[in-house]
Amino acid sequence: MPAKFSHSTRDHKFILKEWLDLKKVFETERFKGGYSVEDLDFILENAWKGARDAVAPSCADSDHIGCRFENGKVLTPPSTKDAYFFIVNNGFGANNVNPEDSSALPVTVLWALYEYFIAANPGLQTYWLANSGCAGLIRDFGSDELKRAYLPMLYSGQWSGTMDLTEPQAGSDVGDSTTKAVPTGEPGAYLIKGTKCFISGGEQDITENIVHLTLARIEGAAPGTRGLSLFVVPKYLPDENGKPGAWNDITCAGIEHKLGLRGSSTCVISYGDEGKCRGFLLGSPPGEDGMAQGMAQMFKMMNEERLMSGLSGCALAASAYHSAVQYCSERIQGRPTANPKSGRCAIIKHEDVKRMLLFQKAHVEAFRAMALQTFWWVDIENHSTDPELHKQARVFLEINTPIVKAWCSDAALQCISEALQCYGGYGFSEEYPAAELYRDARIYPIWEGTNYIQSLDLIGRKMTMKKGEVFLAWVRHIQEFAEANKDAAGFEKEFEILLGTLGKYMGILKTLQGYLTVPGMPQLYATRVLHATGKLWGAKLLLEMALIAKKKMDELGKDHFDYAFYQGKVASARFFTRNILPEIGALGEVLKTGDSTALEAQESIFFA
Amino acid sequence: MPAKFSHSTRDHKFILKEWLDLKKVFETERFKGGYSVEDLDFILENAWKGARDAVAPSCADSDHIGCRFENGKVLTPPSTKDAYFFIVNNGFGANNVNPEDSSALPVTVLWALYEYFIAANPGLQTYWLANSGCAGLIRDFGSDELKRAYLPMLYSGQWSGTMDLTEPQAGSDVGDSTTKAVPTGEPGAYLIKGTKCFISGGEQDITENIVHLTLARIEGAAPGTRGLSLFVVPKYLPDENGKPGAWNDITCAGIEHKLGLRGSSTCVISYGDEGKCRGFLLGSPPGEDGMAQGMAQMFKMMNEERLMSGLSGCALAASAYHSAVQYCSERIQGRPTANPKSGRCAIIKHEDVKRMLLFQKAHVEAFRAMALQTFWWVDIENHSTDPELHKQARVFLEINTPIVKAWCSDAALQCISEALQCYGGYGFSEEYPAAELYRDARIYPIWEGTNYIQSLDLIGRKMTMKKGEVFLAWVRHIQEFAEANKDAAGFEKEFEILLGTLGKYMGILKTLQGYLTVPGMPQLYATRVLHATGKLWGAKLLLEMALIAKKKMDELGKDHFDYAFYQGKVASARFFTRNILPEIGALGEVLKTGDSTALEAQESIFFA
Repeated sequence: MPAKFSHSTRDHKFILKEWLDLKKVFETERFKGGYSVEDLDFILENAWKGARDAVAPSCADSDHIGCRFENGKVLTPPSTKDAYFFIVNNGFGANNVNPEDSSALPVTVLWALYEYFIAANPGLQTYWLANSGCAGLIRDFGSDELKRAYLPMLYSGQWSGTMDLTEPQAGSDVGDSTTKAVPTGEPGAYLIKGTKCFISGGEQDITENIVHLTLARIEGAAPGTRGLSLFVVPKYLPDENGKPGAWNDITCAGIEHKLGLRGSSTCVISYGDEGKCRGFLLGSPPGEDGMAQGMAQMFKMMNEERLMSGLSGCALAASAYHSAVQYCSERIQGRPTANPKSGRCAIIKHEDVKRMLLFQKAHVEAFRAMALQTFWWVDIENHSTDPELHKQARVFLEINTPIVKAWCSDAALQCISEALQCYGGYGFSEEYPAAELYRDARIYPIWEGTNYIQSLDLIGRKMTMKKGEVFLAWVRHIQEFAEANKDAAGFEKEFEILLGTLGKYMGILKTLQGYLTVPGMPQLYATRVLHATGKLWGAKLLLEMALIAKKKMDELGKDHFDYAFYQGKVASARFFTRNILPEIGALGEVLKTGDSTALEAQESIFFA
Repeated sequence: MPAKFSHSTRDHKFILKEWLDLKKVFETERFKGGYSVEDLDFILENAWKGARDAVAPSCADSDHIGCRFENGKVLTPPSTKDAYFFIVNNGFGANNVNPEDSSALPVTVLWALYEYFIAANPGLQTYWLANSGCAGLIRDFGSDELKRAYLPMLYSGQWSGTMDLTEPQAGSDVGDSTTKAVPTGEPGAYLIKGTKCFISGGEQDITENIVHLTLARIEGAAPGTRGLSLFVVPKYLPDENGKPGAWNDITCAGIEHKLGLRGSSTCVISYGDEGKCRGFLLGSPPGEDGMAQGMAQMFKMMNEERLMSGLSGCALAASAYHSAVQYCSERIQGRPTANPKSGRCAIIKHEDVKRMLLFQKAHVEAFRAMALQTFWWVDIENHSTDPELHKQARVFLEINTPIVKAWCSDAALQCISEALQCYGGYGFSEEYPAAELYRDARIYPIWEGTNYIQSLDLIGRKMTMKKGEVFLAWVRHIQEFAEANKDAAGFEKEFEILLGTLGKYMGILKTLQGYLTVPGMPQLYATRVLHATGKLWGAKLLLEMALIAKKKMDELGKDHFDYAFYQGKVASARFFTRNILPEIGALGEVLKTGDSTALEAQESIFFA
């Protein structure tokens, strides 16, 4: 089987060194004296090698053997454990959220290299990625005792963390959760009773303990999400030496048999079957008004998981793309159009193959730019002391998050399908990497809030914040960029299209505004408006990078070994602007017609 | 596990009884005195029941157990054999191409019910579907001896037929085949030597013999596809009693481990390892100019397989759609937008869910209409004596075939992905039907000529036939329909959009015409032009059906049990016209800009 790890570090270096202003992050109090921009090449290459040599070898086992469920235990292939401990033991894990760790990396850098680990074995990601969020919440909201008992083990990855929201009857609608927490008399300690499902890594044989962050309702708290509190619920209660002690009455009732991510256990978790499951409250109990803190706390972690989903789409699409490029340059088939008599050629010479590859390349670079720029804003929010930047960070984090989650994960599916198509019949064979990626990536539009939930978040909450001012400020940053560069040499057509599209996009917002009073209409168009927003923003970022690349091309000249990379950045921006942006105009047309057929449709037509 | 067979017969009854003029077919010499329009309900329901009760039960085994390869043998689960013989023993197999079979069905009807069998177990289709094409070629081009030896066994399905084109180094480029045929001295008999791959059903343990129709080059024949001849190459040579006799030196060297269609064996077939493999020529040997008849013969079968691929996309998308409707009407989650206080509701009430379901419904009905209307033209070409209809049949068969193959199979993937999304987390679980359908359907854009090959066929051959006259006649039938109905009450907006889109589509053709002299440009846009053509034609067919449905609604009145069906047909047409057609305008914009970034891209940018 061909190696599944085919990433390049080149684009990440460009993003971190030539595009995003990482200095602003490295110069903050948190990172001063630690790593600097000069170290980025080494950091990226080192992680890349680790992904290739220590993580990628576990991928086939994860997918082919997968998880087994036997007598309440989840068994993972041995290579999973090795890969997990490679990541956490080499400074890539939750140690980075430990404020005392002087070798910690900014999240912008960290997530750049997480792309390699995710791509190297998509089925592994759920075991190590939630540790940081879990540790971060205990760090920020836990009592001193909780911090002492859990943080060192979570930081080091000896114990893993999970997030437990979903229940069989409460998926998208978390507020309908029925898991209960009953006070024990001991401050902060509760008895937990209930069942959660779709818990990634909820049970496994990799770490000696598992720390569940579980949403539950304390008796008397408000209904809906407002009344949910967050609890630390360990599989084993830490003993006096900080080791896993008594079993905490948590059972895994089963795992899902899944389309993809087969190495990742997706568990049904039962709390307190014997009435002895103890959970430890994060923050304060609900006030007299019944309002609890759990959802707001969970959202700190959730927002990171949403960005992770978009970046995972990027990782798998990039993996599929690089593999397809390799295959297309080796597979001989047909003759070149321009000169058929020159004999058979590699299929990378064929027009539709080039189109499919450039489609993938441009999208992957847009995904990566979106996700890493947003992580850069996370760093700014967490560490910068500049009040103006801080204010901006809020804007970008609020708006960017649902777009990164939903647009990147949706468009990634299309990219991977195109990569698979590049392989012809071999794309359908599990001997080549496209098939697994096609299966694995299908989860990202679903978990961490379905993409419809993201769309509702964008149009229902984010676009209406402060009477729409926040969102308009976000659009304005694209508008200002387009106007400032409309005469940029060689990009006149691209900026003409971008400006024209911005006009159409504003028209979409206006039409949508008019529909706000018609029940159901904003919801009906939510997904499509999110996609349009993603495309618009994607083009902006690609052009921003292309302007830098163009300068670099002029500086380096055609014979420089790096010329092709910059040329490729320009090609991505050009292709995306000219081929993808016009789709936004089509949505404008649809919205103007204001079709409401789906709303008016009687359910009976679906059964007839 | 929920039943995987959830088709309805309602739309097929509408298509065959209220829309397509089946009388024209039943009244031909071939079918006169046999079945009539009155029998259609029974025929469809009977097949539907068989699909549910005798074919669908084999689906789980096909997917979960799949094919095994042991010592040169392919082992299928026992339920596969049962399902196969249910189909061929009940008059649904190649008996329908036997001119003497008085109970034979027109292909229009046959393929309507094949949709049920394909949906009931997608992994079974490759074992029985090729028998007809194989028998048809021997019937039309075989010597009397070949007909005597093979036809009864193929008609009855006791023996199965396969088509063997692809070779490891010659996939899309069939002309580069290297399989050889050496004359034996005995008239019509040759020694075959070579290797074919991706041969569906090339080896199995279902039938007692397998008849390979194999493309090979007789020494001295022209290079490329022109020099290929077609041979009947049985696994076992028929003995004097017509039973499988001596082994014919055909070996299965292995099977593919695939993303989907796991019950279907995809084989590497080796001919003549011991120099004893005998093949029997169909038609005449190559003339002195080296021109052979094999490709033209094979294309008779291939065109049917291409329509099959589009119809298979339809079958699986329909299956996913009906299952999703069921799930969405049972799954309780969230509250209705218009009245949140009314409490939790089934997710089918949610706007995005309704949009996704209507998207699927409209597309499935467009796929089905396209495929069955094209099969109707096959019946007309095969059996009608009306010279004008005959002439039209050629036009429609030439143009429709690549569109049915490529647009339906591509858009089906999108539909199935939407169906999977409707299930939320359960969509990613293999316990629900969406996951398998998502995997299985991924083959249709690849096999029987990739969708890029179809696009090249459309724009390179079909659009240029008789200087474009043939294609313009095809577009004209849409134009005339739109103009004739532009004032149809209740559809004014739809026809306005259709007419507007036709204008834009003509613009696309004109722009494309201008690119004909620029090497690579037509190829670069081929896939997108095919998709646009599919959408335009799809809207036309949906509207044609909607006009009939609207009349029926008025006749029946709201309280009639069948009202919802007709209402649904109108909703499909309305949704598709208003939401999908505007995408054609976006392609027009892209083409006008004439982006050639992908053509100009140096290959090095993909490796940088």
